[in-house]
Amino acid sequence: MKRPTKERLLEGGLAMLLKHGYNDLAIQELLVVHGIPKGSFYHHFRSKEDFAHQVIDRYMQEVHAGLDACLGDAGRPPLERVRAFFELSREKYRGEGYMGCLLGSLGQELSGVNDAFRFKIEGCFSEITARVAVCLEEARHLGALPRESDAQHMAVLLLDCWEGAALRSRLRRDPKPLNAMLDFYFRSVVR
Amino acid sequence: MKRPTKERLLEGGLAMLLKHGYNDLAIQELLVVHGIPKGSFYHHFRSKEDFAHQVIDRYMQEVHAGLDACLGDAGRPPLERVRAFFELSREKYRGEGYMGCLLGSLGQELSGVNDAFRFKIEGCFSEITARVAVCLEEARHLGALPRESDAQHMAVLLLDCWEGAALRSRLRRDPKPLNAMLDFYFRSVVR
Repeated sequence: MKRPTKERLLEGGLAMLLKHGYNDLAIQELLVVHGIPKGSFYHHFRSKEDFAHQVIDRYMQEVHAGLDACLGDAGRPPLERVRAFFELSREKYRGEGYMGCLLGSLGQELSGVNDAFRFKIEGCFSEITARVAVCLEEARHLGALPRESDAQHMAVLLLDCWEGAALRSRLRRDPKPLNAMLDFYFRSVVR
Repeated sequence: MKRPTKERLLEGGLAMLLKHGYNDLAIQELLVVHGIPKGSFYHHFRSKEDFAHQVIDRYMQEVHAGLDACLGDAGRPPLERVRAFFELSREKYRGEGYMGCLLGSLGQELSGVNDAFRFKIEGCFSEITARVAVCLEEARHLGALPRESDAQHMAVLLLDCWEGAALRSRLRRDPKPLNAMLDFYFRSVVR
């Protein structure tokens, strides 16, 4: 059975937004590729901007599913669970040809001129760091991080550094910057 | 005396590219703001793409001047000189309202679809890290970094993490992510 039109547009849109960015994304091309009439697009989305916001919502559903799977894995120590989430993200990037992170690329492209995107993407980052911070706090509590560590602060640092590594990975189509950054971070925080 | 037209276009273009990104940059608007006729633009630049490449070249001249000033300051220990370069960059960002790094924003926006920009920006990052690595190697030699440190690797890590912090700074219009990242990095590498 064919998936619903809206689902196909959001999925196809995610891949195209990651590659093209927002301003270079041609909705017409997306519709042609998926054989969807134009009227159908505007039945589901008010505008290109509304569409991109919903693509980000869909991306965040996947992110939260990844966080659920990794951070909730009670059989592993908390620092391993945090690292597992970023390694899962790296594997997702691999499947996309190392195009980096949608939040980072749209955040860079649009946040100079569009506050709706700017606040939305900052909100996504805050959601991720809040969940990572809970797990880092658990690590601190168990003595895997120094007692004086600030879990929220460390979670923000981790995501910020990750986003830079994701950019470099996108430029080089290469996972090395991601691995190097994770190695550095996790070696540093435990001391 | 009025500065040459090409200079004014490159300077104005830098500010507009940082804010708007590449695809949202309207050359016409740039010309109107600076009172420059369209024919004059195409006298100096083959295309919008050629213009953006030359804006990046100009940006890199400033970066190299900053590296000269900071890394060449032989009166300070090498790690302080490296940090001074990134603090200088932060002060430049402050003057622009914390819009982040032009290389990072164009790299994110364009590297999915345009290999000329992708390779150019990766080349700029490589130039910066090569110079930073020389200074980190000096620090290692003087015992300010552990003997087993790989200066080139540490320079790449520093720039990658910086770029992520610059994105977050752009999203929040705030220098805190930049300062937090520098504190973390320089605290971590000396151990």
